[in-house]
Amino acid sequence: MTGWVVVAGLGPGRDGLIVPEVAEVLALATDVVGYIPYVRRVSPRAGLTLHESDNRVELDRASHALDMAAGGKRVVVVSSGDPGVFAMASAVFEALEKGPADWLSLDIRILPGITAMLAAAARIGAPLGHDFAAINLSDNLKPWDLIEKRLRLAGEAGFAMAFYNPRSSARPHQFARALHILREACGEDTLISFARAVSTPEEEINTVTLAEATPEMADMRTMVIVGNRDTRRVGPYVYTPRSAL
Amino acid sequence: MTGWVVVAGLGPGRDGLIVPEVAEVLALATDVVGYIPYVRRVSPRAGLTLHESDNRVELDRASHALDMAAGGKRVVVVSSGDPGVFAMASAVFEALEKGPADWLSLDIRILPGITAMLAAAARIGAPLGHDFAAINLSDNLKPWDLIEKRLRLAGEAGFAMAFYNPRSSARPHQFARALHILREACGEDTLISFARAVSTPEEEINTVTLAEATPEMADMRTMVIVGNRDTRRVGPYVYTPRSAL
Repeated sequence: MTGWVVVAGLGPGRDGLIVPEVAEVLALATDVVGYIPYVRRVSPRAGLTLHESDNRVELDRASHALDMAAGGKRVVVVSSGDPGVFAMASAVFEALEKGPADWLSLDIRILPGITAMLAAAARIGAPLGHDFAAINLSDNLKPWDLIEKRLRLAGEAGFAMAFYNPRSSARPHQFARALHILREACGEDTLISFARAVSTPEEEINTVTLAEATPEMADMRTMVIVGNRDTRRVGPYVYTPRSAL
Repeated sequence: MTGWVVVAGLGPGRDGLIVPEVAEVLALATDVVGYIPYVRRVSPRAGLTLHESDNRVELDRASHALDMAAGGKRVVVVSSGDPGVFAMASAVFEALEKGPADWLSLDIRILPGITAMLAAAARIGAPLGHDFAAINLSDNLKPWDLIEKRLRLAGEAGFAMAFYNPRSSARPHQFARALHILREACGEDTLISFARAVSTPEEEINTVTLAEATPEMADMRTMVIVGNRDTRRVGPYVYTPRSAL
């Protein structure tokens, strides 16, 4: 088989944050597969077929990619950020597990990218400079109770936290509930940063205390980062010290 | 003031994993500051002074960088991986907080990079495809008891975990203790991956169960990633499903 699948991260938005290895593999591809806005970040060229798919069809998209590779195509599955963090890499392996046995001999490679929480952290200062947890606040693929439990335990552990998919119009009350739990678990004075549309022209960064935070400060384009009890401001920056007592 | 400081991540080792913005800023710098092996990854050129410093002098190095920028230099502080994850960004803000007030008006910027856990995860498969915690296992800057507490709580929360600095010759018994706690907190059948020298010619990847894991499987060049209870093998890959019950 000469086909392959590479699952590649396009980073948070700006082309200057795409690693060279991703650019190189896109130049070799015959087919690019992904969610519409990510595929549109790939420049069209002769010999390259762009396959745009809708949100929430990750498994279908992954199976399509594996199937094309089994047929000899050189396929890049594009994700924003890093494909291994709440993105397409796990979906490709889930599709591989469910698919025909001969897919197991396919050449599959994951190429990392700049994930949203690290792009956001860099714009805020260094809020993830100590131990931290990355949590997807969407309950599409897990029960909300489990999310609440994780917020409480992460607060008890003293982890800073980065939240993906903090809020959607389909479940506006849940992020209010998350803020309530965080106030209890982390203390009202803990800093929380809202980083919207990082590395795009619409970028906005806003840091407040948990006491001051309101659900409207986040939407689905926002990364939310909560510090630990030592997280502080210095000048216009927010950072978490390397040490803890 | 025309000087500036950029804290930039060089990624895990291979130049193809350095984002273009980091390469661009290195081309503009008058001075590069960092731990010896990272500074040696920067190509010398006329007009660029390379300042190599030893490990464990992060605050001195950060103050030196800020002081040079205050004097008009264009300074890049280089970290491996991402500067915001157990690297130089927090140290620069700590030095800023402790330094003279006029440093607060300096132009300071953090440029993200591919952090070791995400480079390792990509080589393993997708072990961080669900909620996870990133923990520095070194007790240089925090008490060991706090690390044990975090391992237990992260296990209880069902987080996958990525460990930086898992083991050093100065504290060989601690990683054995960490494995013991993880067996209790996560179950003996949970998968653990050891990714050594990722993205270099010496790269080695090894996945076993927590029951089979031994302290010698890690050294200071190893990223260790522990899955959650759903983490599994498919073909030669290890991945954590996106969903949880």
